Amino acid sequence: MAENGSRGSRGRNGLDGEDEEVHKSKAREEGGEEEEKEISVERVFICREVPPWRRQLTIRALVVSFVLSVLFSFIVMKLNLTTGIIPSLNVSAGLLGFFFVKTWTKFLDKSGMLRQPFTRQENTVIQTCVVASSGIAFSGGFGSYLFGMSERIANLSSDKSDFKNPSLGWIIGFLFVVSFLGLFSVVPLRKIMIIDFKLTYPSGTATAHLINSFHTPQGAKLAKKQVRVLGKFFSLSFLWGFFQWFYTSGDDCGFQAFPSLGLKAYKYKFYFDFSAIYIGVGMICPYIINISVLLGGILSWGIMWPLIEDKKGDWFSAELSDSNLHGLQGYRVFIAIAMILGDGLYNFIKVLSHTLIGMYGQIRDKQRENVLPVAGQDSSSNPPLSYDDQRRIQSFLKDQIPSYYAIGGYVAIAAVSIVTLPHIFSQLKWYYILVIYVVAPTLAFCNAYGAGLTDWSLASTYGKLAIFTIGAWAGSAHGGVLAGLAACGVMMNIVSTASDLMQDFKTGYLTLSSPRSMFVSQIIGTTMGCVISPCVFWIFYKAFDDLGTSKSEYPAPYAIVYRNMAKLGVEGFSSLPKDCLLLCYVFFGSAILINMVKDLLGKRGWFIPLPMAMAIPFYIGPYFAIDMCVGSFILFVWEKVNKAKADAFGPAVASGLICGDGIWTLPASILALAGVKPPICMKFLSRATNDRVDAFLNS
Amino acid sequence: MAENGSRGSRGRNGLDGEDEEVHKSKAREEGGEEEEKEISVERVFICREVPPWRRQLTIRALVVSFVLSVLFSFIVMKLNLTTGIIPSLNVSAGLLGFFFVKTWTKFLDKSGMLRQPFTRQENTVIQTCVVASSGIAFSGGFGSYLFGMSERIANLSSDKSDFKNPSLGWIIGFLFVVSFLGLFSVVPLRKIMIIDFKLTYPSGTATAHLINSFHTPQGAKLAKKQVRVLGKFFSLSFLWGFFQWFYTSGDDCGFQAFPSLGLKAYKYKFYFDFSAIYIGVGMICPYIINISVLLGGILSWGIMWPLIEDKKGDWFSAELSDSNLHGLQGYRVFIAIAMILGDGLYNFIKVLSHTLIGMYGQIRDKQRENVLPVAGQDSSSNPPLSYDDQRRIQSFLKDQIPSYYAIGGYVAIAAVSIVTLPHIFSQLKWYYILVIYVVAPTLAFCNAYGAGLTDWSLASTYGKLAIFTIGAWAGSAHGGVLAGLAACGVMMNIVSTASDLMQDFKTGYLTLSSPRSMFVSQIIGTTMGCVISPCVFWIFYKAFDDLGTSKSEYPAPYAIVYRNMAKLGVEGFSSLPKDCLLLCYVFFGSAILINMVKDLLGKRGWFIPLPMAMAIPFYIGPYFAIDMCVGSFILFVWEKVNKAKADAFGPAVASGLICGDGIWTLPASILALAGVKPPICMKFLSRATNDRVDAFLNS
Repeated sequence: MAENGSRGSRGRNGLDGEDEEVHKSKAREEGGEEEEKEISVERVFICREVPPWRRQLTIRALVVSFVLSVLFSFIVMKLNLTTGIIPSLNVSAGLLGFFFVKTWTKFLDKSGMLRQPFTRQENTVIQTCVVASSGIAFSGGFGSYLFGMSERIANLSSDKSDFKNPSLGWIIGFLFVVSFLGLFSVVPLRKIMIIDFKLTYPSGTATAHLINSFHTPQGAKLAKKQVRVLGKFFSLSFLWGFFQWFYTSGDDCGFQAFPSLGLKAYKYKFYFDFSAIYIGVGMICPYIINISVLLGGILSWGIMWPLIEDKKGDWFSAELSDSNLHGLQGYRVFIAIAMILGDGLYNFIKVLSHTLIGMYGQIRDKQRENVLPVAGQDSSSNPPLSYDDQRRIQSFLKDQIPSYYAIGGYVAIAAVSIVTLPHIFSQLKWYYILVIYVVAPTLAFCNAYGAGLTDWSLASTYGKLAIFTIGAWAGSAHGGVLAGLAACGVMMNIVSTASDLMQDFKTGYLTLSSPRSMFVSQIIGTTMGCVISPCVFWIFYKAFDDLGTSKSEYPAPYAIVYRNMAKLGVEGFSSLPKDCLLLCYVFFGSAILINMVKDLLGKRGWFIPLPMAMAIPFYIGPYFAIDMCVGSFILFVWEKVNKAKADAFGPAVASGLICGDGIWTLPASILALAGVKPPICMKFLSRATNDRVDAFLNS
Repeated sequence: MAENGSRGSRGRNGLDGEDEEVHKSKAREEGGEEEEKEISVERVFICREVPPWRRQLTIRALVVSFVLSVLFSFIVMKLNLTTGIIPSLNVSAGLLGFFFVKTWTKFLDKSGMLRQPFTRQENTVIQTCVVASSGIAFSGGFGSYLFGMSERIANLSSDKSDFKNPSLGWIIGFLFVVSFLGLFSVVPLRKIMIIDFKLTYPSGTATAHLINSFHTPQGAKLAKKQVRVLGKFFSLSFLWGFFQWFYTSGDDCGFQAFPSLGLKAYKYKFYFDFSAIYIGVGMICPYIINISVLLGGILSWGIMWPLIEDKKGDWFSAELSDSNLHGLQGYRVFIAIAMILGDGLYNFIKVLSHTLIGMYGQIRDKQRENVLPVAGQDSSSNPPLSYDDQRRIQSFLKDQIPSYYAIGGYVAIAAVSIVTLPHIFSQLKWYYILVIYVVAPTLAFCNAYGAGLTDWSLASTYGKLAIFTIGAWAGSAHGGVLAGLAACGVMMNIVSTASDLMQDFKTGYLTLSSPRSMFVSQIIGTTMGCVISPCVFWIFYKAFDDLGTSKSEYPAPYAIVYRNMAKLGVEGFSSLPKDCLLLCYVFFGSAILINMVKDLLGKRGWFIPLPMAMAIPFYIGPYFAIDMCVGSFILFVWEKVNKAKADAFGPAVASGLICGDGIWTLPASILALAGVKPPICMKFLSRATNDRVDAFLNS
């Protein structure tokens, strides 16, 4: 399963349970084979001196990183809490980072105070730092496991036994003790993965390509134009968000409640909600994702839920409210879980077997050769190294990070963690954590290796694995649900940061950035993320009282999904409504089957939807799918009209839409916190209701 | 004062009381001096045979004319009944006429059945016919004098004494007996006006230029592109109208009631109402018109009305409803009337003096020379005639219309009219009509001459003259109000068609069309108009019950303005609320003063607003001014970005928006007639009201 979307910051590709491999195909096209194509990249940069690693980590880079981290944390958090679909934000992070530092250096240059020119290594440092930081906004589980522990979600899933409400203190503490382990666990392996195994890391490669291109004169020119387009759509999207705000004084008010396809369709959540952010997301996601989401929406809210609703009083008690998990809501949540787990299981097995087969092949080759191709040393059986490779390997091996440092760091942090975590979650015994930390480096390596091969991080799948195993181990009597969710958090953080770091090393390798500066930058980014993300979440949590409820603007759909997965793991299937289990089996099986058929058909199976994407609207409804399809449609038409322009500026437009709407949530939540409510309600009433209301108002 | 806007079909330029000289400046730029510039137009067409006049009047031309007449009648009627601002529709009429016949002939040509190629003469015939026909939709007074006679408007102006409700029968009869007189009254003078006096007729010239350009290969190519753009925006605008319809199930529902600037501003009618038609109108009207309208709106609804409202209970009784003419509404209506009359009077005197001075100069010149420049005959003092002029004069003089035919026609129709009209309006005595018909030819000539010089038809000003003179003559005891309104109709129809016909002759002259075919085409067009326009009005009247009330989607603002002018003429100022008369004097004076300053400054006075345009929002509110300014703004930005493209396609975009929204009123009224009501109300409530409504709905 793809790892979090904020990592998508590097194009690692969107959503699985809460993040699907949004960008897989695209990143592959971009990345992948470009090393072969552009043989002479480093010759272009030959006259540019590579600064030593300390000078790659400039103050200005860290300041820009901080600003962008806040920006992207808001965006990722909003996406987390609305649908859980997080597209790749790498283009916008790259562009904005470039834009800020470039403007700054230009300004200094003019005033004659520029001491150090802007280099691509510095750009890579910013990218790495921002990705690491905003990644925490995803892997922190604010839309999934962490918020799933809260009382509100516990009530929603009719499981009042055990909860832990979010609070700034313990969240920051928790993140600090778990987020750094992933980094230390795979650092020693970087040479093996990048140089020896020559893993692709498509997203990392694509990002490096982007950064390299920015720093050529032609690339800088295009980047400038792209930044202008991004800025224009950023403002539009921000102003649109602002404009919309005025009309949302109550529930079901404003453009979010616009029944653009009629009231009947609106009842089943088929409507276009004028959300710029999801139009942008739709423009970035491959067509098949958007179509899958729409198909899933039609299948669930268009066909299945209305049919199941007719069984009210038969399959489930007619008195149950719509949001009761023993009623219709149960079908929605558990069928979605079944599909997500089916897809996750299939891909876990697939990527794992790829990993094993790949590693076996690599090791066999190495044994046969018994020689490692090192810079400047040609083995007879290997083709001679290109100039680029030589220069890159040389640079990559220059700044070493001692292994004892990595291992020592891991052990030390793990020890602190084992001591601290049981104080945060009393249900999570120290020996559970120890077991996780023993297994984790292996899983982290697997995930980093798999991501290098397939560009697909499976972090949240490993997280689910932890939910079920630790949950079952603890058992319901000992707070298995909370133990499971907490274990999920520990596992996800390790596994996710591990594969992120390796992607960054690949980017660094291709931009001649020092591994040491990359590593430090990732540590700084992670530190930022551990503080910024909880604060951002806290703003949302305090500003929107109904956060997490299905009627809310921020339903945080995966919180309830994760909690119920934990409950399933602990309590079994007893609480499911009638025939729900059967339906779950069917959808679990179909998810696997669809994936299988898709893989068997290969490229000819492009039209087969992705089960993971299909499952997302099952719970929250298909409205955002319509937004995304609108985005797709705009891009499609644009590509028909002017392919070159659409390719050059499409991502910039999409990023602008996403960033503008995303950052609007900052003032929106501040307004909500300050108790400023919108003045107007744009209400949609049926004619009959409207007549009643008019009569009431005139009386 | 400019004559009706549908004549704008020829670019005669929009609105005065209900139609202002929307296009004056533009048409002048286009037309005017182009004869001098393009000396060799006729050489381009030298190998194209000019068909005899009967073959210029083809069946296909008449069919296309009919279709376009219906289309434009709807558009003009909608504009009449909403604000009374009617922009020049000549570009769209020209483009669409060209498009239809060209498609048809191309189709026939491919199937080998084309007997007669499409000529510019035929195109001119279509243009003439459509303009004549849709002109009736304006000069028929459906938004002004004719609807002002109805019971509903009588009630609104608290004057229940005398009314005549619209009915299909008498309206058609009335139009038939008055609409043809104008044609016959000036036909004998065509040679004097066009050839001897060489009057400019800027709009007629511009139209001829447009048609000539269509029939060159390059012009045809551009026209094709323009048609495509027009079609695109036509569909968009139509679909937008359709989409909006769904949300308007009650009063104050839907996008027309969108408080885009806040609820407080909405109360004073400051809001953007998302109406594509007025965005298009704003794109066609010169910037100064749009700014004038907005200024007028700010002055009245932004400043004066709120101030006067504060005097409630002092200046007028606090119990009076908002729409009572003895209260605030009185100030709105009468101040608007004062400003319209002031502007009208100034321009009447100005154009009349121009006419007299111009004629005096012409006659003196002729007497001195004592020779009329006839084709091929060069007088020594005159410069030799150009090739174009020679060819045009030759063609223009070929097909004569005998004078006895014209005079006989006039006398015959006048006789029928004098007998018939008193049966329709018992208040309109036969001797009133006789007097009108004796005076009318002189006024018709004046108007045609004035329009030739200034492009400004004063039809509705002559109409107002009739209201006051005949109204006062009849007196209140003998139904002076109705007599005045009916006399206004008679006068307007004669004077308006006269100047239209002469514009057409100019167009015909420049496109080598036969005067005879022009005349016949105008007669056919007028006949069509006499039937189509009442039917279109009837559909609106039956479909929208609240037509004419100030809350309605179709407030028909000039109906009440005209009725009150008639009342003023008959009863004097007795019924005005306190200090209203003083304000009226001030605004009457300011209108004259502003015009004077504008004329004195000449081109340097471009920034001075037009009082006529300022008066329009006084009664109906400034919301449409905001639409128009949005249109202006779009055009302005477009011109900044790409001037050439904006100039070539701006009018096409505007026409598309106008036509699409205009024609949507056809299905909209059919739906209303069939009793199909929109399903949803998009309602805008303040937060407090919304809370009450939510409580009510949940109880």
